[in-house]
Amino acid sequence: MTGDLSRFSINQMTVKQLSLPDLAEACKELGVGNVGLWREPVQSYGVEATAKLVRDAGLAVTTLCRGGFLTAIDPEERAAALADNRRAVDEAAALGTDTLVLVSGGLPSGSRNLRSARERIADALAELGPYAEEHGVRLAIEPLHPMFASDRCVVSTLAQALDIAERFPAHQVGVTVDTYHIWWDDTAPLQIARAGAAGRIHTFQLADWTTPLPEGVLNGRGQIGDGAIDMREWQSYVETAGYTGPIEVELFNEDLWARDGREVLAETAARFVEHTER
Amino acid sequence: MTGDLSRFSINQMTVKQLSLPDLAEACKELGVGNVGLWREPVQSYGVEATAKLVRDAGLAVTTLCRGGFLTAIDPEERAAALADNRRAVDEAAALGTDTLVLVSGGLPSGSRNLRSARERIADALAELGPYAEEHGVRLAIEPLHPMFASDRCVVSTLAQALDIAERFPAHQVGVTVDTYHIWWDDTAPLQIARAGAAGRIHTFQLADWTTPLPEGVLNGRGQIGDGAIDMREWQSYVETAGYTGPIEVELFNEDLWARDGREVLAETAARFVEHTER
Repeated sequence: MTGDLSRFSINQMTVKQLSLPDLAEACKELGVGNVGLWREPVQSYGVEATAKLVRDAGLAVTTLCRGGFLTAIDPEERAAALADNRRAVDEAAALGTDTLVLVSGGLPSGSRNLRSARERIADALAELGPYAEEHGVRLAIEPLHPMFASDRCVVSTLAQALDIAERFPAHQVGVTVDTYHIWWDDTAPLQIARAGAAGRIHTFQLADWTTPLPEGVLNGRGQIGDGAIDMREWQSYVETAGYTGPIEVELFNEDLWARDGREVLAETAARFVEHTER
Repeated sequence: MTGDLSRFSINQMTVKQLSLPDLAEACKELGVGNVGLWREPVQSYGVEATAKLVRDAGLAVTTLCRGGFLTAIDPEERAAALADNRRAVDEAAALGTDTLVLVSGGLPSGSRNLRSARERIADALAELGPYAEEHGVRLAIEPLHPMFASDRCVVSTLAQALDIAERFPAHQVGVTVDTYHIWWDDTAPLQIARAGAAGRIHTFQLADWTTPLPEGVLNGRGQIGDGAIDMREWQSYVETAGYTGPIEVELFNEDLWARDGREVLAETAARFVEHTER
């Protein structure tokens, strides 16, 4: 691989067709030193086994995806969600990453109240933030594109995410800046500055915006360079705001999943080199 | 029809399976006095013929959809777009409506610059605003949901729309407030107040947010009451901001289009009565 990949991190979901051992091996071959992991494949392989695998491969785990889904009204559902998020913190700590990405959750069935759903997230973080801190893990609220507001994430903008995060210390709660979700928002650069000034940019992720969107809109994230987003522009915003950490590429894309995982990883690394400043 | 329909307007696209004469007749039967029209079916039927038809049926035309698509860089494309928008103004005036809805257009092929695309819209309005005023027509910039930012409309929020509109007199350029596009935005209520204070709410439209979104995401607008949006809440925002005009229901929905148009019109009117204050 030509080009500096020291800040590149491959999010596991981008190449979910690769098993964890195959991913570790492919990273080694390509000189990729960072991975973002997902809870479900990690749990399938075993948390401790995964921790050993990445340690032995010399891989740094940049983030664990994902906790969250904290919008339930029902007390039992809320208690279950909190318990699951504490487990996610435990897993993050076991994997040696300092960042757990949170996808907040959508509207409960029958509800039309985004505002109160956002407040329930803040209520939950008042319990989870200290727990995460005790385990050396930071929570990173990820605003998802507004097209997910009803069914997946009631936090749609960096401003909304920061309005919640700022109620807590930065080493407990910050934000995920993902180009895919915020690229349309002309106020996002200012919000990135707001987040950076307080040390709340806990991770920076790239995905490109391509159309037409597929049915359900979840798995249409474009390969870097294929879409409408100027990656260098967003990189410059987070770096001007003081972020110098890893840059994770996280794509959900049926076409990429249908291809050879090592080939997709190599292509993604090459696109990273082509479309970011190093 | 039970219930006050005096402020209800049926946008033609909601029942596009109905011909213009059938739409006029169905409106008469149901006691619907307002329609929003679209250029393509009006042109097919004939602008003057449509004007006579609605006049004879006693229907008020609340809006004409749509002008816009003003983001081209190529000079010939820009000139063609401006000419087409002048024709749209002429058609609006001929139909007796004072409001032409504008969908701004997406990114030109190969461009990743939303900011400059938005500036080109403002440049175009500097020419179109005075022309519209001469013809007694107001231009209503419609922010479309951010999921349309690349391919259909680079204006994604009311704030962005007002940033452009405020460069012109309110009787030339205002905004379209459509629940479907802005319901996720916690800053939209403030922007509605900003628009209302300046007399820039030129039309208010309803559609509900339902999931999963269909492929291409264009034709997934839900029937009023079927989705996540509290219509009364948004009605209260525009009314508190001083808007007392028609409330148009504009749905793009394959399931509704597959049904009997009169039945859909009756259902839509009933849902309007159920979900708005009168």
